[in-house]
Amino acid sequence: MEKGYIHLYTGNGKGKTTAALGLAIRAAGAGLQVWIGQFVKGREYSEHRALKRFEDCITVKRFGRTCFIKGAPEEKDFRAARDGLKEVAAVLEKGTFYDMIILDEVCIALHFNLFSVDELLDVLKVKPAQVELVITGRNAPVELIEYADLVTEMKEIKHYYKRGVQARKGIEE
Amino acid sequence: MEKGYIHLYTGNGKGKTTAALGLAIRAAGAGLQVWIGQFVKGREYSEHRALKRFEDCITVKRFGRTCFIKGAPEEKDFRAARDGLKEVAAVLEKGTFYDMIILDEVCIALHFNLFSVDELLDVLKVKPAQVELVITGRNAPVELIEYADLVTEMKEIKHYYKRGVQARKGIEE
Repeated sequence: MEKGYIHLYTGNGKGKTTAALGLAIRAAGAGLQVWIGQFVKGREYSEHRALKRFEDCITVKRFGRTCFIKGAPEEKDFRAARDGLKEVAAVLEKGTFYDMIILDEVCIALHFNLFSVDELLDVLKVKPAQVELVITGRNAPVELIEYADLVTEMKEIKHYYKRGVQARKGIEE
Repeated sequence: MEKGYIHLYTGNGKGKTTAALGLAIRAAGAGLQVWIGQFVKGREYSEHRALKRFEDCITVKRFGRTCFIKGAPEEKDFRAARDGLKEVAAVLEKGTFYDMIILDEVCIALHFNLFSVDELLDVLKVKPAQVELVITGRNAPVELIEYADLVTEMKEIKHYYKRGVQARKGIEE
């Protein structure tokens, strides 16, 4: 592939992780190799079951457990996020083996100070130019907005959560 | 599935079709049946090749040819869009066979007056309550924003197209 770019999907609206998933699927359809690292999330969602059909071209790793979001992160949340960052570094070491690297919800990890934006940017420094990088999560810090080539803000205009709709299997999880 | 809701992904930013694709994949992972109708787009993109792995649970139909977007729609564009609308009506006739129906880029069809929002809403009137409906495309008319339960505006903050980057296989197409 030619030069890879850096995408950032942020904002308080729905569609960030699903957009990254869609990019992964499209890339897989073009024969590209994709690595997805999901920060903060630890549970298996329906998308993981679907992605099993792409074991030859999409690798998914999870680094965390969603539950702290309602409280404060604990030692194991910090450890999981830091282990994730280490694994991103290891994946980047592989050079151009992966054509696309997706760091899902990494902005949430930054928001909760599980690691700093400087630490993240430091790890990303060795990203080969050809690798497409996709970053998601609300509250993206300004440093990431500057770093990215393409930034979309998913802006919530209307959300059914506000009407008491709970997360549903196959739709949100 | 319980009650289905109506999602709308609009705005000038990247991520609308990919978010819909991600929803389709997640739904498939939960064992749901998905029907995707793509308006305006006629070409095969990388995502179509990827979706072939889900032939048992995701059906994709295309109604159009992208090329008129740079000029004015011709008779065949109107015909393709109207045929698409008819097929949506036929799919809705099937009741709850599909758990999720995605009308990709239907807002573009509306924007180019390939059919009217009243015609669309009239077709959607028979949607069973359990069916999740996903609508995408920039320039969503206010009637659709009112109609939807969940609206996300994908807002372009930065886009590499402006730097002359062309659509790339596996990323945009």
